[in-house]
Amino acid sequence: MSGLLKSDAKGVYVIAATPFTPEGAIDFDSIDRLVEFYARCGVQGMTILGVLGEYQKLSESETLDVARRFISATKGRFPVIVGVSNPGTAQLVKTARAAMEMGAAGVMLMPIAGLKTDEAVRGYLSGVLKALGPEIPVCIQDFPQLSGVFFSAGCFVELVDAFPQIVMFKHEEYPGLRKLSTIRKACDGKGRRYVSILCGFGGIHLPQEYLRGADGAMTGFAFPDVLVSMDALMRAGKDDAAEDLYDAYLPVLRHELPPGIGLAIRKEILRRRGGMASSALRAPGPLLDKDDVTELDRLLARLERRTGRAITEILQTAV
Amino acid sequence: MSGLLKSDAKGVYVIAATPFTPEGAIDFDSIDRLVEFYARCGVQGMTILGVLGEYQKLSESETLDVARRFISATKGRFPVIVGVSNPGTAQLVKTARAAMEMGAAGVMLMPIAGLKTDEAVRGYLSGVLKALGPEIPVCIQDFPQLSGVFFSAGCFVELVDAFPQIVMFKHEEYPGLRKLSTIRKACDGKGRRYVSILCGFGGIHLPQEYLRGADGAMTGFAFPDVLVSMDALMRAGKDDAAEDLYDAYLPVLRHELPPGIGLAIRKEILRRRGGMASSALRAPGPLLDKDDVTELDRLLARLERRTGRAITEILQTAV
Amino acid sequence: MSGLLKSDAKGVYVIAATPFTPEGAIDFDSIDRLVEFYARCGVQGMTILGVLGEYQKLSESETLDVARRFISATKGRFPVIVGVSNPGTAQLVKTARAAMEMGAAGVMLMPIAGLKTDEAVRGYLSGVLKALGPEIPVCIQDFPQLSGVFFSAGCFVELVDAFPQIVMFKHEEYPGLRKLSTIRKACDGKGRRYVSILCGFGGIHLPQEYLRGADGAMTGFAFPDVLVSMDALMRAGKDDAAEDLYDAYLPVLRHELPPGIGLAIRKEILRRRGGMASSALRAPGPLLDKDDVTELDRLLARLERRTGRAITEILQTAV
Amino acid sequence: MSGLLKSDAKGVYVIAATPFTPEGAIDFDSIDRLVEFYARCGVQGMTILGVLGEYQKLSESETLDVARRFISATKGRFPVIVGVSNPGTAQLVKTARAAMEMGAAGVMLMPIAGLKTDEAVRGYLSGVLKALGPEIPVCIQDFPQLSGVFFSAGCFVELVDAFPQIVMFKHEEYPGLRKLSTIRKACDGKGRRYVSILCGFGGIHLPQEYLRGADGAMTGFAFPDVLVSMDALMRAGKDDAAEDLYDAYLPVLRHELPPGIGLAIRKEILRRRGGMASSALRAPGPLLDKDDVTELDRLLARLERRTGRAITEILQTAV
Repeated sequence: MSGLLKSDAKGVYVIAATPFTPEGAIDFDSIDRLVEFYARCGVQGMTILGVLGEYQKLSESETLDVARRFISATKGRFPVIVGVSNPGTAQLVKTARAAMEMGAAGVMLMPIAGLKTDEAVRGYLSGVLKALGPEIPVCIQDFPQLSGVFFSAGCFVELVDAFPQIVMFKHEEYPGLRKLSTIRKACDGKGRRYVSILCGFGGIHLPQEYLRGADGAMTGFAFPDVLVSMDALMRAGKDDAAEDLYDAYLPVLRHELPPGIGLAIRKEILRRRGGMASSALRAPGPLLDKDDVTELDRLLARLERRTGRAITEILQTAV
Repeated sequence: MSGLLKSDAKGVYVIAATPFTPEGAIDFDSIDRLVEFYARCGVQGMTILGVLGEYQKLSESETLDVARRFISATKGRFPVIVGVSNPGTAQLVKTARAAMEMGAAGVMLMPIAGLKTDEAVRGYLSGVLKALGPEIPVCIQDFPQLSGVFFSAGCFVELVDAFPQIVMFKHEEYPGLRKLSTIRKACDGKGRRYVSILCGFGGIHLPQEYLRGADGAMTGFAFPDVLVSMDALMRAGKDDAAEDLYDAYLPVLRHELPPGIGLAIRKEILRRRGGMASSALRAPGPLLDKDDVTELDRLLARLERRTGRAITEILQTAV
Repeated sequence: MSGLLKSDAKGVYVIAATPFTPEGAIDFDSIDRLVEFYARCGVQGMTILGVLGEYQKLSESETLDVARRFISATKGRFPVIVGVSNPGTAQLVKTARAAMEMGAAGVMLMPIAGLKTDEAVRGYLSGVLKALGPEIPVCIQDFPQLSGVFFSAGCFVELVDAFPQIVMFKHEEYPGLRKLSTIRKACDGKGRRYVSILCGFGGIHLPQEYLRGADGAMTGFAFPDVLVSMDALMRAGKDDAAEDLYDAYLPVLRHELPPGIGLAIRKEILRRRGGMASSALRAPGPLLDKDDVTELDRLLARLERRTGRAITEILQTAV
Repeated sequence: MSGLLKSDAKGVYVIAATPFTPEGAIDFDSIDRLVEFYARCGVQGMTILGVLGEYQKLSESETLDVARRFISATKGRFPVIVGVSNPGTAQLVKTARAAMEMGAAGVMLMPIAGLKTDEAVRGYLSGVLKALGPEIPVCIQDFPQLSGVFFSAGCFVELVDAFPQIVMFKHEEYPGLRKLSTIRKACDGKGRRYVSILCGFGGIHLPQEYLRGADGAMTGFAFPDVLVSMDALMRAGKDDAAEDLYDAYLPVLRHELPPGIGLAIRKEILRRRGGMASSALRAPGPLLDKDDVTELDRLLARLERRTGRAITEILQTAV
């Protein structure tokens, strides 16, 4: 058993896609296949029902069915964090409790749209955290490019002081390297308790984030094996080797980053790597057109030439 | 039976609140009570599961239960439009079909967040309208202050030409009087088929909107009886009498307008008028504090003095 | 002489329009005329080069010429606050110093676009306030509907503690009644020094704001004489008489409120009241079309009937 | 002489920084030095007074002085486009005419903040283009991440049909590869006249954009020599060599991309490459802190190792 999420969490917590059939049904077999793929990639954890998981297009019962299948497929090999953001606090709590009962290690949530100031964010998150109770470990997701909600480092730190169940910060404000440094210094395990910081937003600054004190990555990049290797190299003190590896994949990582179309690209790469049967997004998700596919073909062919590895091959940790 | 929504719809389609108990459970008895209240107000129709209906805080099964109870409580006295906006097209279609089977007259939807241009809005709405099919009458809600999605009058008119099932436009862009005029002139029943235009955004410009050709109101203002009377006076050609009546209520209407806190004020007035047992919003909805209540007390006392009517009294149509 | 702006400022500080000729030249004679109009209205102060002043369409030299003419035309009868918001701090300071040398009582500034958190707002305003120095009295304008910048009450209060030159808060966040109450209670002259709070955003909640402790209005409403009377009644403890007067003008006040087109409506009313020769805005300002003018004609005719006063008549303070 | 900007413009039009002294004065000597640097880089053109040029922090007279110095320093070696975006149309036209008289090849403008639909954008740009007249070649900048204004490909194409003076499109909506393809296909010189498309937003998808039909780059990337070489390789049909070169610089290009802090990073690299004496931004521009500098040192050291070239060395076109 993987147990509850703790503030010393490290490494690569991959953001899982939710596989659908071309007709839009949930493809449960591909959930199993995807979990095996991530397991072979060596991920330290997995976060489901995030943006890449198209959580907002699932009904309530589908949400629970998907969570159950993902958690069960991991067979306790690594912890699962479940995204539970919801406009209604009661629904949020209900989903969170159900997820924990299924064996989730913790939940992830972000402030709802429309909060405009640190005061408002603190008020909202305090209410939700009280309703969740102290038993459920929480990762706070900071993704203002999507939520439209900005809060300061100081605001997060106040919440850390007030709510011991906050064990992780998903950093993805862009630009945000200084915010990461500020939070790292504030929650350093000396002046204040340590909080795990994992980095999202496609990992576009990941080597820099490691060097500023991040504990790992939480992103849907379709080559999590590469991030796992990079993470291992970083931990071994081989910063340049880690970044060399990362840089080789940067052209593709950069190509996956854009919101919307980027999700379709990621799912298509995951399909080509064997992670799922179809790359379909649920409507109204974007479809790749002929130009997009040609472009992706070319980028992946270039990647294979540069790395000397087929994209279907899973990179074994290089340390 | 009230039948399907048509493009000649007129009058006051009240936006219904969803009553909750102080603990956050759906208060089904108050749904019945609220429908009776609206019926006594003489509304021409009702729209449920909109913003005031806190639709985004209901689970899928609650959504259907609430819709069923509202529709059944009307006993066919007036048509019910059901808000079905949803990030997932399949969910949207499923809710719409269920609502129509329960006896809804039509559905209302708005573009999902993140659409940035007329092209994108047209693309999204075309996809959804095709998925819904031609049998379900549709009201397009234009509420960019909430959705963040702006589209031009020309964009809407193109959709009208392509999709006969669009029978109604809920106008609430602010400022937007010119857009209303442009759409009215374009969809005037001569050069192009007529489309019903009902006005929301709290009715803050309602008399002006009638004079620019609107067919009525679709708002959650807690005095729908007043809007019904105003509508009747407008139709009788008594524009100044209509606006005099409206102006008497303008201080309260203006006070209800703000997003967020305005919903709490509306529910509190509805409670005081006998429409529901509790004015509670589901978390994380705003609560009125002591200052807010004192302020509201004063405004309602002033209203009673000015109109010579207790707020519990329902205004009988004045024509 | 009116001297420097102090934290006990009270009453109506009218936001002045900048008069242009139909060809877009600055109409200096109308500046004189407008100042006389405002003087006859009995305003306690005047703020120039704000949004209604179309400050962003003036060149640097025009800015100074306009400020000089306005200040000189007041002949010391009431204080003038000069809007100095500028993307460049050096330019801001230069304009502020020039304005003070011309006899301004203080300057008004708002955070530049793009600041996302309390930390960022505090950082920006601290930098600007240090550059301005302690000698120039400052009014902080809080207008997030325009600037896109939101900050919390607590953020403002910290600035008050750090910078004694902040003597005034222009409150116009919407909705924002609670923020007003919070700042009023925090800066009450007991626990912390008093700061003047004047209310903008068209005065759409002005009576409520007075009752929550505001010291007056700072808005471009085209009937400042009415606000002056309302202010006097409020100070005399005649709250209901004050609000009755306000309510009579609320239909027009509400009509002037929308951004963009509202400025054109205000200038047209000011023209009709004799305040300026032309209601032209500089391009790309909106123009009133035929429908807009018909609508305004009707609203003003209704106002004259309701009040029994021609709009050209200036209301003498009623206390 | 370089003459007027034409729709067959190609290659790298570098966005020029504006050099300041640490005290914030314009550093005219560094303007000369920077132009020589860009000339040695082999750029095909230069765009001044854009975002990287901190145009909004310059006074009216500084704007003209800076434009004059830049244009004069080029000695006719390559065309200069002058950014003239301005909230006031009259000011915009005045700056544009002055720039053309100084020898500019054309002007660049973007829609002002606050335009919400294709109709509004078309209305605004039509007004400005009429005021500018048909003699001044125009590049339309599409940078919604900064302006907040989104318009569709169709909207731009209508403007192209109506205004022959539009000769260039600066593409930088993100994500926006499909929009680029749509405009390229619509303005292909067959069904409709050709329009030059240059790509900004830091060049983050530049190879893909070339392959979709872009004519070049218009960005402030601090290694314009690399883009010039890449452009030459692309034109020679050596797509992979072009992209290999680009990819080597992608880690730094990616690092420069973020708004705000990215400008400070670019100016610091330009300084280190010898382009200017100081990397200071005018207040309230961001400053690099110690962490930022350490990070940049590392990235540039890695770049030098990877390319085998000192960053001070200017890459000679590789074809």
